[in-house]
Amino acid sequence: MTAQRLAMAERRRNPLTNEWVVITAHRQRRTYRPPTAQCPLCPTSANSEGFTEVPFETYEVAVFENRFPALSPVGTIEPPSTAGLYHSDPAYGHCEVIVYSDKHEQTFSDLSPERIRLVIDVWIDRCMTLGSDPGVNYVMPFENKGELVGATLGHPHGQIYAFPDIPPRPRQQLSTAQQYFSSTRRCVQCDVCACEMESPVRVVIDTNSWLAYVPFAPQFPFEIHVVPKAHSPSLLELSGEDKRELTDVLSRVAKCYDRLWNFSLPYVMTIHQRPANDECEWDRFCHVRIEFKPIHREATKLKYLAGAELAAGAFIVDVLPEDAAAQLKRALP
Amino acid sequence: MTAQRLAMAERRRNPLTNEWVVITAHRQRRTYRPPTAQCPLCPTSANSEGFTEVPFETYEVAVFENRFPALSPVGTIEPPSTAGLYHSDPAYGHCEVIVYSDKHEQTFSDLSPERIRLVIDVWIDRCMTLGSDPGVNYVMPFENKGELVGATLGHPHGQIYAFPDIPPRPRQQLSTAQQYFSSTRRCVQCDVCACEMESPVRVVIDTNSWLAYVPFAPQFPFEIHVVPKAHSPSLLELSGEDKRELTDVLSRVAKCYDRLWNFSLPYVMTIHQRPANDECEWDRFCHVRIEFKPIHREATKLKYLAGAELAAGAFIVDVLPEDAAAQLKRALP
Repeated sequence: MTAQRLAMAERRRNPLTNEWVVITAHRQRRTYRPPTAQCPLCPTSANSEGFTEVPFETYEVAVFENRFPALSPVGTIEPPSTAGLYHSDPAYGHCEVIVYSDKHEQTFSDLSPERIRLVIDVWIDRCMTLGSDPGVNYVMPFENKGELVGATLGHPHGQIYAFPDIPPRPRQQLSTAQQYFSSTRRCVQCDVCACEMESPVRVVIDTNSWLAYVPFAPQFPFEIHVVPKAHSPSLLELSGEDKRELTDVLSRVAKCYDRLWNFSLPYVMTIHQRPANDECEWDRFCHVRIEFKPIHREATKLKYLAGAELAAGAFIVDVLPEDAAAQLKRALP
Repeated sequence: MTAQRLAMAERRRNPLTNEWVVITAHRQRRTYRPPTAQCPLCPTSANSEGFTEVPFETYEVAVFENRFPALSPVGTIEPPSTAGLYHSDPAYGHCEVIVYSDKHEQTFSDLSPERIRLVIDVWIDRCMTLGSDPGVNYVMPFENKGELVGATLGHPHGQIYAFPDIPPRPRQQLSTAQQYFSSTRRCVQCDVCACEMESPVRVVIDTNSWLAYVPFAPQFPFEIHVVPKAHSPSLLELSGEDKRELTDVLSRVAKCYDRLWNFSLPYVMTIHQRPANDECEWDRFCHVRIEFKPIHREATKLKYLAGAELAAGAFIVDVLPEDAAAQLKRALP
């Protein structure tokens, strides 16, 4: 599908942290909460012409390039330009939209097992394709669900970002896992799974090959991590049976969140897995993890990121993870 | 002033990042957007009894321990308890509230120069006192202004957190500054100031001894950093004239934000300075910086932290910093 791409974004390095920031002035004009009749993700119909980006009257899952991409493959990969202390370069990469359904009012928790399985297969397919671009170092499927976490379109969809570098948070997690592996010869996520199973006070779902649990030290009160029990660096190594079970686990997690307080709970869902490059032996210590971060701390109260979190990176969590897990377990379908 | 302190919080280490998270189940019940007549920060009057925490009929600036602290000096500092992979200990530290005015409806931008000067003196006094606690490693004054950044009380106030460790984000900034100093023998913030003055496209206010600018690679579109031009590790080294000028700069920044779109703009303000411990030669490369992070990207649109920012730590900024600086300059009083 062709995308009308606008000007390419710029990537700038913060000299106080050495972290890259993407500056995307063109995205400021992106489609913002359009009326349902003008939804760009709905199927093409007699009325939708000119609004939708999907040229089909019906579809199961659609995936295409974001029309207002933060990262874009247009332009060449140049060595960073340097102006004294300041470095910038074109924000190379890919931003794709993955639409879960042609029904505007659905959410991930409404999807059938067959549809979720198809979404998983699309994630795997896109991770392979985008990861094979030599300019890409990290592919991250994610979903911003709900207006409260900034979703600008109501239609059920996720996104896939293919970053030119390994972004700060995954890099830190990989570095921690690598240090742990160096000193123990074990995968830290495998050991976390073992700890959770040994004393399952934070476990929400335990299947043959998957564990869904509230982390011992989460960032958000009702955070859930979904992880394969056996070591697996990415979604690509999963067996057919693993994927069938994952379908069921993801469906139950999504439904559980909606049943917790009887409304469609906003969250950020992210899949963290092996980087796309060959920088080091990632497979030894990198373990795929699907994170759900809902931003509510109670049915009517949000966890705001403010001084402690934004400026200090110090997260304060108002609910005991063991209590959150008990509440979530009671809400399971 | 005595504070009725509740149960002490627990600090837990995330084994996937080695970052500490504070778990504060008792704060879930903290005072949440009370009606003005029940404001705990208003002066004591015939009607306020039982609600306010300030036992005076009038005051200029009040500072006292947070009644629902995330970090608390109650309890002893014990070596971290270890349960396999998981570490936790009491969340030692201090959380103070600094009330800027006894007028409930004011904001920082309404304060007189004399009052702002008093607030600065209180910051310095509390940083000295809290920093002298051997259990404290980092003291951070900040303000969450507005409900949109999670302020639960409308009365104008800031907070001061005294952390037991150097939190993740300051630690990263200090480590970057230290590396820069090792290779150049210069302070990176001093060099950033020089760059900004050389080509002042992002400078919003330039006084004899202070610079207020939109950073080259900010996290939020209308972020402003206020920094002394001369190297100064903390507020404590400032001269009387520096403080007088800072009073004026802070007042103008706060007013400029409110004039930008003609409403009281929510933001997170933070003061980053030299850690309280003697771990290394902080003074050589640590430079005090006051950061303002407003969360709007337009008058009616917020910058949400979602998949890219929350899960990847990769910030996407929708406004060109040079354009933001020009808009802010036009809004200066």
